[in-house]
Amino acid sequence: MLTVYLAGPEVFLPDAIGLGERKKRLCSAYGFEGLFPLDNEIVQGASSVRIDRLIYRANEEMIRRAHFGICNLTPFRGLSADPGTVFEVGMLAGLGKRVFAYTNVASNYLDRTKLTETLAFDPEQKVWRDAHDMTVEDFGNADNLMIDWAVAEHGGYPIVRHDAHPTDIDRDLTGFEACLRLAAKAFARSS
Amino acid sequence: MLTVYLAGPEVFLPDAIGLGERKKRLCSAYGFEGLFPLDNEIVQGASSVRIDRLIYRANEEMIRRAHFGICNLTPFRGLSADPGTVFEVGMLAGLGKRVFAYTNVASNYLDRTKLTETLAFDPEQKVWRDAHDMTVEDFGNADNLMIDWAVAEHGGYPIVRHDAHPTDIDRDLTGFEACLRLAAKAFARSS
Repeated sequence: MLTVYLAGPEVFLPDAIGLGERKKRLCSAYGFEGLFPLDNEIVQGASSVRIDRLIYRANEEMIRRAHFGICNLTPFRGLSADPGTVFEVGMLAGLGKRVFAYTNVASNYLDRTKLTETLAFDPEQKVWRDAHDMTVEDFGNADNLMIDWAVAEHGGYPIVRHDAHPTDIDRDLTGFEACLRLAAKAFARSS
Repeated sequence: MLTVYLAGPEVFLPDAIGLGERKKRLCSAYGFEGLFPLDNEIVQGASSVRIDRLIYRANEEMIRRAHFGICNLTPFRGLSADPGTVFEVGMLAGLGKRVFAYTNVASNYLDRTKLTETLAFDPEQKVWRDAHDMTVEDFGNADNLMIDWAVAEHGGYPIVRHDAHPTDIDRDLTGFEACLRLAAKAFARSS
């Protein structure tokens, strides 16, 4: 059975374990085995290695073990996706594994930036700039272009964008299930 | 000559090309050839492929070509590093290449979060939580633990933290040069 690494900031929720179980049940329904980071039992024991380093190692090992990944790229504590998840998109792509991804906020990166920062239009270069004079990407992507296109190139489909109800933004699995359907289609075709 | 991929949000600056030149000159001084993303000439030509997708492909190709990476993880438009750069840390690690990294803001992730968000201490779990009830990592790291430990495990050294002068936060190369010294030491030892 193909295994899928379940990346996302839900590991930080108080009900993370339950949400991971919901994700794994959905995986089973599509014929996959879900690997959730909190499945790793981190036991420090007599080791002098720091607990956060042990968590890193267990997650990397799980990513290496997985056949592919589904990543939750919902904006997290700011404009962009959870950086831990973004790192994992990169690692999956570097390892040559397929990456599917979803976000529970459908808007563009530029539009979200305009809501929280004061931008100025540079008429010469025809780009938007932030308070640091830095260009704000204006490609209609969900996030930084490296993330959107890594998913498209390494998964074969764009990031699934879905507007979850504001109170369900951290837990809505509509986009997640859409990724499972894409994965089922992609692996059926390639097998 | 070993080549190094120069990842960082400085590509968004109006003087990005000049800063890339400064970085590449420093690389030469340490015996490395720097590869700066904006060295790629992106020519759309008659292709119907979107320009942002062509940029992605050129950057990924450059990362694959590089022997190792030095990544600027200075907080960008929020609490964490530029997500494009974080993706590249992951891709470098996934490809089995060494990753060195620096930040021009020396503070911990938790301390930065406390400055911009209202956190509550959960006395039962003994963790800090944000407005979404999500745990805020409290390991003393510069950023999400996946990033700090990927750098330490895949580069051999912790993220170099240096407090740049506030007006020079986007351009200070003190931490960058420290990474070059670490890389020179690491490759001298392994050759």
